[in-house]
Amino acid sequence: MASEYKTRTGQEFDRNAFESLLRRKVFLWQSFEPYGATKGLFDYGPPLENLEAEVINIWRDHFIRHEKMMALKCSMITPYQVLKTSGHVDKFADYMCKDPKTGEILRSDHLIKDVIEARLKSDKEARGEKVEDAEEDPKKKKKQSKAVKSAVKLDDAVKQEYEHLLATLDDCTGDDMGALIKKHDIRNPTTNNEVEPPVSVNLMFQTQIGATGKEPAFLRPETAQGQFLSFQKLLEYSDNQLPMASASIGYSFRNELSPRSGLLRVREFLMAEIEHFVDPESGKRHPKFHSVRDVKLPLLDRKTQSAGGSTPTVTSIGEAVDSKLVDNETLGYFLVRIMQFMQKIGIDPAKLRFRQHMANEMAHYAADCWDCELLNSYGWIECVGCADRSAYDLSVHEKATGTFLKVREPLKDPKRVEEWTASLDKKKSGPKLKKDQSKVEAALAGLSQEMREKMSISMEKEGKVEVSVEGVEGGKVELGREIVSFAKESRVETMREYTPNVIEPSFGVGRILYSLMEHVYWTREGDAARSVMSFLPTLAPIKVLVVPLQKDARFAPLLSELEARLDDAQLSYKVDQSGVSIGKRYSRNDELGIPFGITVDYESLEGKGFTLRDRDSTKQVRGSLEEILEAIGKMCKGKEGWESVEKRLPVFEGKEEKEE
Amino acid sequence: MASEYKTRTGQEFDRNAFESLLRRKVFLWQSFEPYGATKGLFDYGPPLENLEAEVINIWRDHFIRHEKMMALKCSMITPYQVLKTSGHVDKFADYMCKDPKTGEILRSDHLIKDVIEARLKSDKEARGEKVEDAEEDPKKKKKQSKAVKSAVKLDDAVKQEYEHLLATLDDCTGDDMGALIKKHDIRNPTTNNEVEPPVSVNLMFQTQIGATGKEPAFLRPETAQGQFLSFQKLLEYSDNQLPMASASIGYSFRNELSPRSGLLRVREFLMAEIEHFVDPESGKRHPKFHSVRDVKLPLLDRKTQSAGGSTPTVTSIGEAVDSKLVDNETLGYFLVRIMQFMQKIGIDPAKLRFRQHMANEMAHYAADCWDCELLNSYGWIECVGCADRSAYDLSVHEKATGTFLKVREPLKDPKRVEEWTASLDKKKSGPKLKKDQSKVEAALAGLSQEMREKMSISMEKEGKVEVSVEGVEGGKVELGREIVSFAKESRVETMREYTPNVIEPSFGVGRILYSLMEHVYWTREGDAARSVMSFLPTLAPIKVLVVPLQKDARFAPLLSELEARLDDAQLSYKVDQSGVSIGKRYSRNDELGIPFGITVDYESLEGKGFTLRDRDSTKQVRGSLEEILEAIGKMCKGKEGWESVEKRLPVFEGKEEKEE
Repeated sequence: MASEYKTRTGQEFDRNAFESLLRRKVFLWQSFEPYGATKGLFDYGPPLENLEAEVINIWRDHFIRHEKMMALKCSMITPYQVLKTSGHVDKFADYMCKDPKTGEILRSDHLIKDVIEARLKSDKEARGEKVEDAEEDPKKKKKQSKAVKSAVKLDDAVKQEYEHLLATLDDCTGDDMGALIKKHDIRNPTTNNEVEPPVSVNLMFQTQIGATGKEPAFLRPETAQGQFLSFQKLLEYSDNQLPMASASIGYSFRNELSPRSGLLRVREFLMAEIEHFVDPESGKRHPKFHSVRDVKLPLLDRKTQSAGGSTPTVTSIGEAVDSKLVDNETLGYFLVRIMQFMQKIGIDPAKLRFRQHMANEMAHYAADCWDCELLNSYGWIECVGCADRSAYDLSVHEKATGTFLKVREPLKDPKRVEEWTASLDKKKSGPKLKKDQSKVEAALAGLSQEMREKMSISMEKEGKVEVSVEGVEGGKVELGREIVSFAKESRVETMREYTPNVIEPSFGVGRILYSLMEHVYWTREGDAARSVMSFLPTLAPIKVLVVPLQKDARFAPLLSELEARLDDAQLSYKVDQSGVSIGKRYSRNDELGIPFGITVDYESLEGKGFTLRDRDSTKQVRGSLEEILEAIGKMCKGKEGWESVEKRLPVFEGKEEKEE
Repeated sequence: MASEYKTRTGQEFDRNAFESLLRRKVFLWQSFEPYGATKGLFDYGPPLENLEAEVINIWRDHFIRHEKMMALKCSMITPYQVLKTSGHVDKFADYMCKDPKTGEILRSDHLIKDVIEARLKSDKEARGEKVEDAEEDPKKKKKQSKAVKSAVKLDDAVKQEYEHLLATLDDCTGDDMGALIKKHDIRNPTTNNEVEPPVSVNLMFQTQIGATGKEPAFLRPETAQGQFLSFQKLLEYSDNQLPMASASIGYSFRNELSPRSGLLRVREFLMAEIEHFVDPESGKRHPKFHSVRDVKLPLLDRKTQSAGGSTPTVTSIGEAVDSKLVDNETLGYFLVRIMQFMQKIGIDPAKLRFRQHMANEMAHYAADCWDCELLNSYGWIECVGCADRSAYDLSVHEKATGTFLKVREPLKDPKRVEEWTASLDKKKSGPKLKKDQSKVEAALAGLSQEMREKMSISMEKEGKVEVSVEGVEGGKVELGREIVSFAKESRVETMREYTPNVIEPSFGVGRILYSLMEHVYWTREGDAARSVMSFLPTLAPIKVLVVPLQKDARFAPLLSELEARLDDAQLSYKVDQSGVSIGKRYSRNDELGIPFGITVDYESLEGKGFTLRDRDSTKQVRGSLEEILEAIGKMCKGKEGWESVEKRLPVFEGKEEKEE
């Protein structure tokens, strides 16, 4: 997959060159480098930190403000009991295989994938087909040296089985994987040792609240639980009206046992999660669905995947919901809004698809799930999960805590309800039942309508009934008609109580940022060393590069004025006064993705304005300070494009750019 | 102190009413309420979450963009060794006293303060002076019931001693507090039991990275360490130029043993920390100091506090730095910038002061420290610490890891340096010293210039020297002139290496938000039930309240248009269509701090524009949709005030407001 990945201009993507740029311009690095760096933890330097802040602001505007969502901030440290109830203590886990001879711990699915892919590659070589070198780091290649080296041709049937296995691996349980490992003799590729069967290992970071040892806690694995536990506040703030949605931007944690793939699989990550609460009896309709009905999305459904396919079908969301391919309007509305968000931040639309989860792949709480996947050099990567969590979470928390986590609303048409009642005459039953009385009462209350009707018939016939009662001797109690009576009564129901269902779009911010960086990266025609990060002006980490023609004290006052004006306009800028040519200075800063450059030259000193340069086209125009600041301001707010500026202001054929 | 606290309009501050508003409008609550709520952990609801986001954006603009700081995001999970080196494993602790009979754990300084304050209060009562009831929750009062109840008058000398004790408590060590507890017979106020002497308890949350058990880690207690460990990247990004500053907005953690004071002392909190790196030989001058020289600040210095005083002196920062009251320009520049930030977000200038730390109060790494304190109903609260951490952190990390964490710069005037050398003739020493050779070499390298000179004299006289060598038998080695030689050599030094000093302004965002909420809170004259949160329009969580005159289907199209226009202008708004009077609707939403209201009435239907209402003055003007949107847009960007809008647009004497 990696080798098929191309840059936005259709060039081969060179991950080494790209990563070297990220390091050189301090976009990110592994945390705690002086202490040997910690796997799965990353620091963001100024370009990436600012980019993240801009992306978050766009997200807030696109979702929280525009959709009137209720922004929430909940605690990361979470008591044990909350995550026990939610199911994470038991199920937030990965399957691991241990190499018994070295003690090494391997993720079972990674192990299977690596070994099978290596065999398929070897087969390809044996068949004389061209094999692209996976762009892995050299260390890893060395490590795998004990694995099969000479090319081995597989039977056609085996080859096909392997391919099917890879396509359906995500759908495997632990036992499935254990069987695969046995059947295909999958061993630790580093040592060639057999591995132990997969065992489940919990992936939460554990800690303690306080010093008493009585409050075990975890770092949350998702922001969602805090939102569910705030349900009553949200409902109050919404004046008891559904649908309503909360949104939370915050960190979650996953104690990966062997992190890899850089920013794509980390131990500490920023999420932006929405919990949209709907009435399950509303058909999960969405009031604004009509406004997105005709938007087309690339959808890769479950059926296609089960058949081994991976090509999405482009369908309008209206058709997809009508045909039940996408379950409901709310899910559909969010898929569209997710795609629009991705477009707003500059994701390449050709590198985006929505993939439906397969049955075993879904989280333990999910009823249906579509991932927004972005293509980057690691393959198609899940960047947003859009799951229907049904009523799962609210129900389990209500059950565990006894807190009312439902909506109560007046029925428009009050209903006459006919119901069988079962009443105990406590005065008479007391002396007979004694300490068992409350147990009998509970047993009666728990009887179904059907049972009550049956018992009323027995009572009529035999004058007594036998009721199963938990916790009494023999488990059953005989009750006569003097003690209990059954009757059909009718009453009017004016209120309805229900547990809302939850649709949850959940964004992995780090994965989106990483994919975005790959999507905007390219190199100038004919010069692979001149790389560019084409961040949109609306979210570029720095907006303006200021370059005085050369070091000359006469430029100082003009530079001060220009800086003061950029500061007033709240535009971030960088001044590059180094001695190298203007072309080199621009080129060097293209790597930071600065969209606009202002050149201060000798004509500027004569009051003849400044040159404004566009990063992507390297074209330049000339204008007064006012004109240039206005153009930059508009472009950074997304209110004008370069093409339009180029038409308004005189084009400048500078010699600087040609010198490069 | 609490009782002296007044609202912005000079009213008595009623904390119960204020807290009730925060609950009612879901500003915040204790986390995990359905599970019994966890102390020291809080969730923010929509008004406070949005307020925080606005405050952070202003902070980013005021510091990161305007001061061209390097934004960083570092990991929260931090390996043990990093915090061992930084001193936090040993020193990030509080002193605790245990009640041996109940096992209860009490913070020593809180215990002393509570008991002594109670005695002083009792004394006041006995003297017949008026005593304000501390506005504590009733539960707490009940808990303290076993404590002294009847008023007890103190000797004048004791009273004075107690007052001095409280004023200097922050300056006490653990032993000091132990002595105070003994001397003044301070007991657990709940049980009246004697308590055990203070012991130090570490306050970091501990966890594990991975599943091997070999990577113990903590949740960071400050963002600073990640910034120090990124020093090399920062220097690279700054083209090796100092001064430079990094800034990080992120969470830190403190496992408080008995959290109290609501948002002021929590276990998980957002910080905004700046690390400003300077050359210690530069006099810590700041290039922009001249621009703030005349700004006046309320400064409460160490001397005044030691004498028991608490009244700050208003001084221009220029004078303060000239007189060395504030150590240097950089520290002074930041104090001014901190105050300007506080003004920008709407902090009451009369409730702000800068207090210098006393010697024992400073963190283990600090050389000098000034706190920006804000007055709220809990007293003067540290909201920003501005410490000079000297070269402490970079030095200890360099020593622990061997990573070069200095600046290397060419000397303007290369220096001729005369130095004594001590050289081992390895060929000859090898056979004699054998395995000890490298130890001897290290010992020679570690000799001071002075020692080398002395030894050269011994060698001259006696033909041998005795050198202390760690790890060899006897601890000393005799070396003859055939093996070692001493000589005075001269060389030219062209580079200078130095460890930068660090000035650190560190903002506690939660404390600032809480103080801000108290500062903007007031109630309408003559009606204590009508409370208002006067957030500045630039940072109000919701900008516009839309109120149709009454429920009438004819308003629907106009409302849709208005909503679409507000959305286009990226203004957050809320529509209140409930059946109550317009006055009530405005009044109710004043509690959310919405600065502007638009009334849609029957004249609006006739194309006669809308009414715009100002929250603080309740005054109204009338204008077209364009006029009103323009005015709101400008006011929310801080580019126009209501006074000016009121002059531009015709005043509207609505009957709605009078109906309230």
